[in-house]
Amino acid sequence: MTQAPVPPGLVEAFWEYERALMDDDVATLDRLFAPGPTTIRGDADGLLVGHDQISAFRGRRGGAPRRRIVQTHVQTVDDDHALVVAVTELERGGRGQQTQLWLRTADGWRVSAAHVSTPAPALDTRVWRVVGDPLVPATGSGPLDGESVAVKDVYAVRGQRIGAGNPAWLAQAREEPVTARAVELLLEAGAAVRGIARTDEFAWSLAGTNAHYGAPPNPRAPGRVPGGSSSGSASAVSLGHASIGLGTDTGGSIRVPAAYQGLHGIRTTHDLVSSYAVLPLARTFDTVGWLTRDAGLLQRVGEVLLPPGPRNPAAELVSVPGLLALAEPDVGETVDRFAAEHGAMRESWDLAALPAWLRAFQTVQAREAWQDRGAWLAPRLDELGTDVRGRFEAAAQVDEESADAARRVVAEARSTIRDLVGDRVVVLPSASSVAPLLGTGLQSVREATLTLTCLAGLAGLPAVSVPVTARSGLPTGVCLLAGAGRDRDLLQLAIDLA
Amino acid sequence: MTQAPVPPGLVEAFWEYERALMDDDVATLDRLFAPGPTTIRGDADGLLVGHDQISAFRGRRGGAPRRRIVQTHVQTVDDDHALVVAVTELERGGRGQQTQLWLRTADGWRVSAAHVSTPAPALDTRVWRVVGDPLVPATGSGPLDGESVAVKDVYAVRGQRIGAGNPAWLAQAREEPVTARAVELLLEAGAAVRGIARTDEFAWSLAGTNAHYGAPPNPRAPGRVPGGSSSGSASAVSLGHASIGLGTDTGGSIRVPAAYQGLHGIRTTHDLVSSYAVLPLARTFDTVGWLTRDAGLLQRVGEVLLPPGPRNPAAELVSVPGLLALAEPDVGETVDRFAAEHGAMRESWDLAALPAWLRAFQTVQAREAWQDRGAWLAPRLDELGTDVRGRFEAAAQVDEESADAARRVVAEARSTIRDLVGDRVVVLPSASSVAPLLGTGLQSVREATLTLTCLAGLAGLPAVSVPVTARSGLPTGVCLLAGAGRDRDLLQLAIDLA
Repeated sequence: MTQAPVPPGLVEAFWEYERALMDDDVATLDRLFAPGPTTIRGDADGLLVGHDQISAFRGRRGGAPRRRIVQTHVQTVDDDHALVVAVTELERGGRGQQTQLWLRTADGWRVSAAHVSTPAPALDTRVWRVVGDPLVPATGSGPLDGESVAVKDVYAVRGQRIGAGNPAWLAQAREEPVTARAVELLLEAGAAVRGIARTDEFAWSLAGTNAHYGAPPNPRAPGRVPGGSSSGSASAVSLGHASIGLGTDTGGSIRVPAAYQGLHGIRTTHDLVSSYAVLPLARTFDTVGWLTRDAGLLQRVGEVLLPPGPRNPAAELVSVPGLLALAEPDVGETVDRFAAEHGAMRESWDLAALPAWLRAFQTVQAREAWQDRGAWLAPRLDELGTDVRGRFEAAAQVDEESADAARRVVAEARSTIRDLVGDRVVVLPSASSVAPLLGTGLQSVREATLTLTCLAGLAGLPAVSVPVTARSGLPTGVCLLAGAGRDRDLLQLAIDLA
Repeated sequence: MTQAPVPPGLVEAFWEYERALMDDDVATLDRLFAPGPTTIRGDADGLLVGHDQISAFRGRRGGAPRRRIVQTHVQTVDDDHALVVAVTELERGGRGQQTQLWLRTADGWRVSAAHVSTPAPALDTRVWRVVGDPLVPATGSGPLDGESVAVKDVYAVRGQRIGAGNPAWLAQAREEPVTARAVELLLEAGAAVRGIARTDEFAWSLAGTNAHYGAPPNPRAPGRVPGGSSSGSASAVSLGHASIGLGTDTGGSIRVPAAYQGLHGIRTTHDLVSSYAVLPLARTFDTVGWLTRDAGLLQRVGEVLLPPGPRNPAAELVSVPGLLALAEPDVGETVDRFAAEHGAMRESWDLAALPAWLRAFQTVQAREAWQDRGAWLAPRLDELGTDVRGRFEAAAQVDEESADAARRVVAEARSTIRDLVGDRVVVLPSASSVAPLLGTGLQSVREATLTLTCLAGLAGLPAVSVPVTARSGLPTGVCLLAGAGRDRDLLQLAIDLA
């Protein structure tokens, strides 16, 4: 390739950009990126397409890491186009690379494409608290040989502390003397523990936006929340850091991250899998669950964690238009199509009591959360992120009388839902929407999703989330809800439907 | 920006490249990259410049990770040039990005620049065995507040095993009941342990090319060895994963990685810093040492680990042409220039005994290494990498008589070297060459470097390595060697000379 001279003005524009980057001069950076919808910028968190997306990203990130340019290579295309590749050396250590396509417009040189790499940190602290190669080796050999587990930071791992997504809790935590039974079973079956993954604080959120450690990335939906509270476990699996994400699901904490990130996930029948040495959120509803990238491994984990039991391969699928209607149209239609394609019968349910059921679920959950955590938290509410703090503050106000009333509604709901489901499999949305954009208000999304996800929680039923793609191209989830103890049937069904 | 149509043939070339990549069809990949010295390809391990370098890289890597293309964006410059940005989804999880500048030659479309990003792993297992946020929190507050330590995998950390760079050793290791004294002192002074960093097997190498875990990257010299045996600690500091790399130096294991990676490093006077709960290599020569990115922090760590003592700020610098001549010209000249610039007096030493000293050093080191490790290793030599295995096999042959003879030479050398150094500071190369290229024979480099580094080892003297840049642009190190107990003087000198 013959190398043409560097066109006039390009070097100056390159350095103007570099200075603006170091000064976080967003106006200049915006100006030096070509306007329009085809300008692109990519980094480890994903590709941004269009000047508007790029500009919004700059506005919120608060500056690039300090760096200096140690090498530049210019490939001149013609007087108006050149590629500039720069090697950067970061003040915090390590080297990165930046590739920019520059073009000369009537207003001067502009970047039309940028690809930025910075050195990866020792560990992604949004996803992990501790990781190892492995952190805990397998203790046996079996169906999970070679698999690696991201353990949600509410499970005890001998010698490690439980952090529960909150720095103050972590600071006072002691090293655990035992390993949670579910983790032990995975180790005995040949899996190793890759590490301890972040969770929303005390597992009480569906967003995955931990106020202390940041939101784990959602690789399939860059710029969007990962879903929670098993957020780190889910992102670890999405990123390929672990093959199995061990989590918990009280009101959707497995199903929501599965849907948002396009993973498979299961919450098990309440009490069916040992929650020994797992920090509880709300004991009446808490369940063990896990996430994987494929249905086969989801099932293999089930063969290790679930008791053997009679299987009923017959699966009569049912979909309930009233439940589909609770989701955003994009998601509702996708799930409806999935249900239709798999021959689900439409069935109308009387959902008049659903709002009351949801309130009862939330009341009992709050009461139990406060009973377990209130004494420690009461003098430390300042140490919580805003959203979770609000939940605990409200929980502190729930008296035993209201809780008792709610428990009666829960019992009624449980019985009603179990009757409605019967021995069929109900097809419904795993979450009411695709993953919301980071930085947007999440409260209404939370309520809408919880209206759907609380059904399994209330009734203590198993549910599998199967990934599908919404019309927008973003991942979402189809939830398969079955009768108590039919966990293995659901795992088989997830394979059959894939 | 107006978007011109995609030029004919480009899409086909793009997919031909992608297929060849998945098939590891090196011939096709080579053909599709533009010939010549300006073609470039960069990834997280650094930028390769020129078709030859890129081709050599492809030849040795054994295929790219399995992936599929999930998005493509083409920016057409003209009929003969276009940028193609692709988002990739890896089979093992996560998303990456690839940016390619294509140009049409007489022979068809060719890539003239490529920038490839793949998702970072949970941890870089070449650098780390375990990492955390932090792995061990500070136990006190002091001059090291906010600093993070990469602990070489020969130091005990309570609750963790010692891996010593060998999987079989790790597999039988128990969790340590105590923390090494040096680590405890750092924790008390406010530093946190970031993690446990890789080492060459049993710390017996200067290369950093662990046969089991791979060579940690050398960001300042991509494609070259990191130096060892404190390889992981050094790379962790270079990469910005930790600010302090705690290591050991028996015959150069701090000074060599410091030189190869452009870091500051110190090996302390023998026995001056506690080696309690550190796995020994050769007790007569082993010392505690550390690496940092700047001289100020190197000194602050010294203030925590070194005993207080009288300082002698006077530093008469001496350089010995016969020692400079032992290094490659590139390095020797660089160190010579440094010495001259800082007013070092040239002094001629009788170095006739140096080869015998080196042999005695190696004999005693081998004898002690075998005494400590032989019983366990004898039935397990297969579990060692080739180079280290060779050393242990030779060590098994050293009898007590030869060891005794060598000990007498060591005692003589020790006395002679201490007399030669006196109360001056000797300026010599930290290693005989810049970091060798990965995959090249390292034995001759090892011998040449050890001839220089064994002086401090034999005499039990402190030595600081200060980074300088060789004419080639690669990092190398100036070693400052002083009398016993003058560690703090050396740390101050490293600042004064910076």
